[in-house]
Formats: sequence, C-alpha cells, structure tokens
Amino acid sequence: MSTPLTWGAPHPERADAARNRQRLLATARELLAEDRPGCLTMDRLAERSGLGKGTVFRRFGTRAGIFQALLDDNERALQQEILSGPPPLGPGAPPVDRLVAYGSARIRFLAENQDIARAAVGGRQPGGRRPPMSQIHIRVLLRELDLPGADVDLLAGQLTSALEGPLLLQLFDTPELDRPALTASFDAGWRYLVERVCGPASTPAG
Amino acid sequence: MSTPLTWGAPHPERADAARNRQRLLATARELLAEDRPGCLTMDRLAERSGLGKGTVFRRFGTRAGIFQALLDDNERALQQEILSGPPPLGPGAPPVDRLVAYGSARIRFLAENQDIARAAVGGRQPGGRRPPMSQIHIRVLLRELDLPGADVDLLAGQLTSALEGPLLLQLFDTPELDRPALTASFDAGWRYLVERVCGPASTPAG
Repeated sequence: MSTPLTWGAPHPERADAARNRQRLLATARELLAEDRPGCLTMDRLAERSGLGKGTVFRRFGTRAGIFQALLDDNERALQQEILSGPPPLGPGAPPVDRLVAYGSARIRFLAENQDIARAAVGGRQPGGRRPPMSQIHIRVLLRELDLPGADVDLLAGQLTSALEGPLLLQLFDTPELDRPALTASFDAGWRYLVERVCGPASTPAG
Repeated sequence: MSTPLTWGAPHPERADAARNRQRLLATARELLAEDRPGCLTMDRLAERSGLGKGTVFRRFGTRAGIFQALLDDNERALQQEILSGPPPLGPGAPPVDRLVAYGSARIRFLAENQDIARAAVGGRQPGGRRPPMSQIHIRVLLRELDLPGADVDLLAGQLTSALEGPLLLQLFDTPELDRPALTASFDAGWRYLVERVCGPASTPAG
C-alpha cells in the first residue's frame, strides 16, 4: 500500500483567507467564461471581486499566479481519483501500472486545461523560444541509437526536461549536501536514467 | 556521425542589433560583477548602457529575459565543446556515452551559473512552491518498486519533469496532429519511458 499522501496548502489557511481565495477563484472563472484568458488581469479580478488590489497581489503575486491557482484547484478531482478512485489510477494496481495510468491522466488533464496552463507559465510561452540546445543534441544522439519502439522526438523532450533549469535548481536547494557531492549525485542520476532508457554506456563520462 | 547541429539565433541579426545585444550583455555582466543579481533591472541596464529603455524592452521583454540571454551566451563554450571538443562530450564516442557526458556537462554548467539561471526562471522560483502533486505521487510509487541502484528522489524529479506543463504545452503546439492522436502519442511515449525505467506494466492503462 502507498504511504498516505499529503497534498493541499503547505500551511493551514485562516477561514477568511480561505473564503477570499474561493471568491477570487470563482470570480476568475466567471471572467474566463466571459472572455479570452488574455483579458483576465489582476486589475479586473480585483475590481470584479470587490476585494482590493492588495489582496489579489498578496494572494497570487503575479498574473501567472492566478492561473497557477486555478490549475491547482482544477487538479483536485484528479487528486481524488488517485487517492480513492478505481485502479490502475487509484490504489490497488501494481506500481508500474499506476505510473503509466497517472501519466496518461495527467496528459489528459493538461490537454483539457491547456489555456489555463499556458497562462500559468506566463512569459515563458513554450514555442516562443527555439528548442533548447539540449533537446537538439539529445535528439540527434537518440536517432543514432535506433531504439525500437521509441518516439525519438518525444523521448528527446522527456530527457531534456530532466536536465532543465527548474528541476536542477530545485535540487540544488537541497541544503544537506555540498556542491561536489550534489553534482556527483545528479551525474549518477542522469547516467541511471540514460542507461535504463538507452542501454549501458561503455566508458565513464569524462 | 552526427548530423550537423544548427544552434544560434533563429533569424540572422542585423549588424546594429547584434552590436546592441553585445553591448547590453557586456553591461549586464558589469552590473552583475558590481552587485547582487537582484540589483540588475531593466532600468539600470538601460541607463548604464545608454541605449534607452525601449531597446532593452524590445531585446529582452522582461527582466528574466536579460538573464536568459546571459545564460544562452554563457552556453556557447559548452556548444563548442559538443561540436568540436574531445570525446565523449565531443564527437567520436558512442551515443550513450555522449548522452551521459552531455548531462554531466550540463549539470556542471547549471551549477556554475546558478544565480543567473535562477533569475532567468523569474517568478517561478524553484523551491518557492511545494513539490507538485506529480512528484509526490511518482516518488511513492517508485519507492514501492525498489529499483536497484536508483536514487528514487532524483528519479521522481526526472520523471515528473517529463509530465510538466512547459514540455507538454510545447508538444501540444505541434500543428500536424489532432488532439486525440496527440494525446495517444504522449500516452505511448510516457509508457515507453516508464517501462524502460521501471520494467513492463502488466495491464493496459485505463
């Protein structure tokens, strides 16, 4: 059985803060139902909710933060299915089956919430930048490997994202290890991933 | 041998635009050498470079964009090593070895450029948010699998990042496929990744 999962807010919310959050999210949904996501701004949300711009800023920080909060809120139904829905998404199936089912559910969730998810990533509009160097390089190397059954473009994206800034920077924050130990542990983790996906490497990486 | 890689700017730059970019990047580096990254703002960069705020905005869009441009510029040395340095980072080693070496080099690059990389992701400060639901759920399932030699926390982060918004949204942009076909292809790609890393699933995902 899984250990119990604790999601939800990191600190318990005061009752009035929770009420304000619910009101702001409901108002944001109203505004989205009326108009394009581009029209949902901090100012319009403050005005329509009658809660004041300070409250909206403290709650969401940035415009992208409103959309991230909506996305988190929409995620709750998925959380319930994982915690207590039927297998393989819910408990009771083998872990690999649950991993496969979870990814599938998450992909559907993001497809259905695309507009909100796009606005939640804010300025970093995917597609606006060219593919990162990592992705181009990794795709070229994967093509050479000729992996049976692999979608090389997709696999290149997946492996690239394992080397992206946000993930690695989050890991660099781990306080208990110093830099060389941390770097060595990431190296080992990356090698593990590559070797599982592509087969064993022949030489120690230089 | 690898197919030739084409990185660099998506469109050729006009000579004056290239000069302005170099001048702005040089000024940004001066400002960083003098003070904390937090003190590098659009306004200070415009003032110090003598190029006007409009030019800075058009070039970088946001404050985070300045740091992204610095990061891209710092990445050039790494690009050169990949294109023409010694193997296994450079050409001439088997692809799996090159993949392992590339990840290792990229991890070192991000470790050395942490402050700039953090500022480049802007508002989305990693660590500022709690770990996403995906990461918690995936870590729990990986623990149950008891994979020999795996760093489960790191592997959970790597797999999570393959389901993150930016990657999937970038893929949703692919114009030639319709939504159901696209979703099916992501499902298959995620299943491929999970089964390579964790072993075969026993049931079709529901």
